[in-house]
Order: sequence, then C-alpha cells, then structure tokens
Amino acid sequence: MGTLLIHGGRVLRPDMTVVDADVLVDREAGDIVAVGPDLSGDETLNADGGLVIPGLVNAHTHVAMTLLRGHADDKPLDRWLREDIWPVEAALEPGDIEAGAELGVLEMIRSGTTAFADMYFEIDRTAAVVERAGLRARLGHGAISAGKSEAAARADIEESVEMARRFDGAADSRISTAVMPHSLTTVTPDLLSLAAEGAADAGVPVHYHANETADEVDPIVEKRGRRPLMWAQDLGLCRESDFLAHGVHLDGDEIDLLAETGTGVVHCPASNMKLASGMAPIQRLLDAGVTVGLGTDGAASNNDLDLFDELRDAAMLGKLAAGDASAVAAPDAVRMATAGGAAVLGIDAGRIEPGAAADLAVVDLDAPHLTPDHDLVSHLAYAVNGSDVRHTVCDGQVLMRDREVLTLDAAAVMARAERRARDLVARAD
Amino acid sequence: MGTLLIHGGRVLRPDMTVVDADVLVDREAGDIVAVGPDLSGDETLNADGGLVIPGLVNAHTHVAMTLLRGHADDKPLDRWLREDIWPVEAALEPGDIEAGAELGVLEMIRSGTTAFADMYFEIDRTAAVVERAGLRARLGHGAISAGKSEAAARADIEESVEMARRFDGAADSRISTAVMPHSLTTVTPDLLSLAAEGAADAGVPVHYHANETADEVDPIVEKRGRRPLMWAQDLGLCRESDFLAHGVHLDGDEIDLLAETGTGVVHCPASNMKLASGMAPIQRLLDAGVTVGLGTDGAASNNDLDLFDELRDAAMLGKLAAGDASAVAAPDAVRMATAGGAAVLGIDAGRIEPGAAADLAVVDLDAPHLTPDHDLVSHLAYAVNGSDVRHTVCDGQVLMRDREVLTLDAAAVMARAERRARDLVARAD
Repeated sequence: MGTLLIHGGRVLRPDMTVVDADVLVDREAGDIVAVGPDLSGDETLNADGGLVIPGLVNAHTHVAMTLLRGHADDKPLDRWLREDIWPVEAALEPGDIEAGAELGVLEMIRSGTTAFADMYFEIDRTAAVVERAGLRARLGHGAISAGKSEAAARADIEESVEMARRFDGAADSRISTAVMPHSLTTVTPDLLSLAAEGAADAGVPVHYHANETADEVDPIVEKRGRRPLMWAQDLGLCRESDFLAHGVHLDGDEIDLLAETGTGVVHCPASNMKLASGMAPIQRLLDAGVTVGLGTDGAASNNDLDLFDELRDAAMLGKLAAGDASAVAAPDAVRMATAGGAAVLGIDAGRIEPGAAADLAVVDLDAPHLTPDHDLVSHLAYAVNGSDVRHTVCDGQVLMRDREVLTLDAAAVMARAERRARDLVARAD
Repeated sequence: MGTLLIHGGRVLRPDMTVVDADVLVDREAGDIVAVGPDLSGDETLNADGGLVIPGLVNAHTHVAMTLLRGHADDKPLDRWLREDIWPVEAALEPGDIEAGAELGVLEMIRSGTTAFADMYFEIDRTAAVVERAGLRARLGHGAISAGKSEAAARADIEESVEMARRFDGAADSRISTAVMPHSLTTVTPDLLSLAAEGAADAGVPVHYHANETADEVDPIVEKRGRRPLMWAQDLGLCRESDFLAHGVHLDGDEIDLLAETGTGVVHCPASNMKLASGMAPIQRLLDAGVTVGLGTDGAASNNDLDLFDELRDAAMLGKLAAGDASAVAAPDAVRMATAGGAAVLGIDAGRIEPGAAADLAVVDLDAPHLTPDHDLVSHLAYAVNGSDVRHTVCDGQVLMRDREVLTLDAAAVMARAERRARDLVARAD
C-alpha cells in the first residue's frame, strides 16, 4: 500500500506548538513515520492552507441515537427518558441501529473524529458499520437492570461480557470493546461486580455512567454511607483501564481516587448543560492528574456529534465552573479532545509524531472566522467547527478527501436514516 | 428592481411552525410581499432543500475586534483588558477598524446574520463597511470615562451623541444609531445622565453594558444603596428604546423594571462563559416579558461571530442557570436570535411574513448533522451552525448566494485583516 504524504500544511505538535511540516504515513502499518519539511511519499493529500491535527476522539456516545436527533428536547431527564426515549428504544430494530450508526459515523468522519466509544445495543451492527467506515471504536453492549427480572438483568450483563469478548480486536484491531453496565444506579450492585469480574477476565475495561446528576449521587450516599466512586471501587470498578462518563458531581476524595486508580473520565459538557445536570469540575480533575477525554453523549441530548462543539463547551463551561476565566485553557481543551480521549480509550493515537497511529484530520484555515491567525490552538478551541474539516485519515487510510467521505455513500446513508427514523417513531407511537 | 422569489424551500413562520412555501420579496421596498405556494417573481433564489428563516440579529458586538480573535485568551477579565486588549486598542488606527469591521461583517453575512448592534470607535469606518456590505446595523461610539480627564470624558460622551445624530438613517436607513456610554461603572454618573439626555434629544436609544459581573454590581449596591438598574433609571436610563448588554446579575426587582420600562436585554452567553461572568437568568427574563436578544460580544471573547453558537449556548446555558432542562426551549432561543433581537434593535424584521423587512437566510438542510428532520426548530437551536447557511438576503438584496458573498471580496478582506492584525499587534508590543 506504500506511503501517504500529507503535504504543505501546518502541523499541531503534541506540545501544542504549530510548525510548517509534511506528515508521512505508512499505510500498511497505519502509523505516522515522519513529520518534517520536504518529505516525499507514494500518494499525496494536499494540506495547503490547512492545519493537521490528531483525529478527535469522541469518548462517550450512543451513536445510533442520531436517529432520534430532535425527536424530543427541552424536557427534564426523567420525563424525557420515560415519555420520549425509552418507548422509541423499545421499538428499535437492528436495522435502525445500523442506519443510526451509519449516520453518526458519517457525521463524525466529516467533523474530524477518528475514534469513539459507544454504549448501545446490537453492537454487531455498529461493529459492521465501523468496519466498513474505517474509523476506530471501543464498543460495548449497554446492560441495564432497571425494569428487568433478576435473571434477565443477569443475562444482560452476561451479554455485555460476551459481546466484549467477541468483538475485541475486530476490524483489524480498529475495534476494541468494554463491558458496559449502564450506570451505578441502573444496574444492581451484584451485577456491577459481575461486570467488573467479566471485564477483568476478558481483559477489557468497564465503561459506565457515574455521578451525572445530584439525584443519582444523593441516594447512593444515603444508602451506602459513602460517595458513589468509593462504593464503586468496593464493587470492583475503578481499575486503571476503566472509564466513566460525566463525573459532574464529584468530591475531592473521588477526584483523588480517579487520579490514583487511573480511571478515565469522559466529560460531556453539552449533554450536562442540555439536561441541566450541572458543571463538572474539569480544571480540578486536570490539576489532580486525572485522564480526561470529551464526549458528545447521544445526539438526542446534544444534538450533534461535532466534537469541536465539545471542545469549545469544555473550555467555556470549565471557566464558569471554576469561576475563573483562566481555567481550562485552549491547549488543555484541545488535549482532552485528542490525546486525553485516546488515553481514555487506550489507543496509541491523539498526537502527530512518528510511531503514533496515523489518525488525523486537516482543518481548512482559509475562512473569515479563522482569520487572523494569532493563535491556531485558540482557533481550535473557540472558533473551528466540524464543517471546517477538509480531510480525515484513520489507521493510515483516507476516510474523507476534500469533504467527500470515501468509505460511505453519504446521500444513501442520509436517505436511509431519514426513512428509518420516520418509521421508528411511527411504530413507537 | 422588481421582485425576488425565494423558491422551493420550507419557511419558518413567526409561530415557529414550518411550511413548504415560496417567499416573494419587493426588492425596491426591501419588504416581504407574500409567503405561500407557487409564487412567481422576476428573479429566483433557489431554496430547494433549504429552510428559509429570518436573518439573525447580533444585538451586541464590537465588530472590529475580529482583528484580535485569538490574540489573548484564558485570562481573568481585568488582566486580559489591561495586558492584552487595551494596549492594542490604544494603537488602533482607523484603517484597522475598517479592516476588522469588514472581516466581521463578512463572517456575519456568511453565517446568516443580517443586522447587528455595534459599540466601538471610528464609527464612520464601520458605517462605510455596512453601507457597502448591505446589512443593517445600529452603531454607536463607545464612550468611556475611566482613565480620562473630566473634560476628555465629557467630550467623549458628546462625540457619542454627535455620531449618533450624524449616522442615524444612513445607508438608506439601513444604519440607525444609539448613544453608547460604555457601562454603568466605566462612565461617571453625570456623564451617564448627559448620554441619556443627548439620546432623548437626538431621538435614539442608549446602549450600555450593565450587570455583567458581580464585581461590577456589588460596588454600586454598596455606594448607591440600590441595585444598579434602579440607580441607572434615576440617571435617566432604562427608557423603552434603550437596551443593555449582559444583564447576568439581576434581582427580581430589576427584572420587573426591565419588563415595565421596555428596556431590552442582550444576552451574550458565550462571552459570559468565557469570561466566567456567570449565568444570566434568561428564563426568568422571558417569563417576565422582557425583550431579549442575543449577542456574540466581541470576537476576542467568543471567539467568532456565528450567532448560531449563541442560539445553542442560550438554550443550553439557560437550562443550566434554571436547573431545569425544560427552560429556554428551542423555539424561545430561535425567537431571541430573530424577532427578539429585531425588537431590541427597533427594526421591523425578524419574521417571515408580508410587510416585514426582507431580511432572511436560507439554511441548507442536506447534511448528516441535520438528519433526520423530526424538528427543524430543534435543529436551528441545537445542530445548525453558520456554515450551513447557503443564501443571505437583507433589505431585499442578495448579499450571499450559494455561499459566495456578493457585496465583499472575501479573499481581499481576509488578506487585509491578516496584514492589519499583524501590524497592529507588532505596533502595540
């Protein structure tokens, strides 16, 4: 397959400086081989006037929920789930999952995301989409106890472990997995422990929602006599590779626990605002040395999968949460969206340097909203949006060239999603 | 000049419903003449697959500050102003203002904004840009007492009144004006009164920053013994046409005062987050019947002029501020960005119906992040961004067609802004 040369652009380095440089990629190995001036390669991707950045990592989403984008908004979380989301999810067919996953993956490739973590159902369908679309994913079957018999809830956790075993390493290792019990409150304690054991046995992480709302934290504190993450650790969670979504309501001891155990946190600022969940203490997490990535959460609570929005939201909301305009500075936000997310997902990417995975995006800087170029890292945090991405490369393969996605038929994907979404909502009514 | 037919799209009506309809515009009068099926006109703008919406209104900005986009970020407000913004502003030349205004206006037209309110210096330069670019603006000279002799501060207010008189009604009435004392804390009380008198005499509103940070509110309460807006009213401010920017820290009596007097509020959510100023009580303002518009503030604290970001931020942050996911619903956010802003600026626009000004934008819906189309108002609030705008029309004239701005030479504007920005920062160092 030879080499791919990303030519003529500027390159964002891991230390957040920017240099004029070419990037040479080994397409067979899927790695970056060299970064520097005047390189040559077998095939060329023109990055003139562009900024080469690591592919963004969307470290927590429910990708098929793109089918429900705009289906219901502006309701309190419990009513929204009960009245709008769960009835529709109960009517989901595997073909819906595949159509929604395709739509979401298309949107992510177009906006420069090259890896994501997904918690949902029918993960064979999502895995098939990831395989042909060409990006990376850590997939898991979301298992939930609420509303199920004990046997059914146990079977659900066992399915999560079984799916994690089956798909780990799929798509030439672009797919990895995790056991995904839904949350500390929607899965029973013994099944949380079973999930942890199953994951340890399968050699994969556990991923779950935690400390998202005060309504979720307070009952645990009351019933268990300790903070949710201390209790989770007693159940066998919070191992080094594990990662949790949200972490909005955390106390100092929990932050220390996250740092000490190496548990990753996926910050979902848009979802936290839209569902009025609260403001995560992101600067405190960073100060404590916690590994933090960013996630869009599902499109039904966002409502898009453009990680540049999360980058901006993280920098903005982090300041408001800290009451300090110097908190969550632009380079920190960019790091969370790239290297931070890669670390959370356990992939050797998120940086443009030899040896790292060739997962990258080229941002077109030739636009009024990105002029003048005082500081390109500031632009990435505050002014770039997904539509500014010109090329997307993952594992050494070009997934999008000049804004045209090569691995999916965009028009067909959108038409199928539109049709599936209408039928789904009609069926659920 | 005849008529312009916006053909084949869907149209957002004032009641926030969407219909398939054409929009017929009288180009001479600059008004909408008809909205309905199967209309015909002299010239056609193709809106196939698009949503026709009122042009967005950016009701508070400092447009020339686009030259400082990314110049300095992530600092507390006082240090940022003292170390980074004021030294550069001291070195500003009229040509910089013009170059920055052109860049900002280009960005606004591209992202569907057709009217803005601007507080800055050298407003003859901004007026010239507005005149040739074709959009609407309410302009004012920002006058400040801080750091000036009493005579110089008085002269500054007098200039603000004089400029308001001179430019009101310029550019075939696309330009209106206001007297713009900078804020309740940076202009002395007697000069605030002088501004109010001058504005009343000239028949224009007063526009100023108010209640942006707690640091600004507390000293007024302490020194004057009452809330800032009660005090402002005693000085002659808070008349029906007046409008203030921010209003982050407001108590119930001040909200009532705003509603009773008809004073408009321009909510700037991105700036309030980025500078850690706080969360404005937007749902409470809406509930009280206050006229609320949205503003980007200057690009140096945002960092772009894409009002779709403010729309999303207003809906998101409004929920967080209220602790209620049903607060600031999508239709309310869209109203603030259109009819609300138009009311704040006192222009007869912000709605697609016969008799209103022909100020509108066509949003291209054919994109993965806008699929499926369960709810287009939700998409406007949560998923559309400025890059999705295909056409922009103001006062009956097409300012952008198929993403090409017709009234400005985009490449030349960007090149000039880039050069001016570099020279300016070098000069200020």
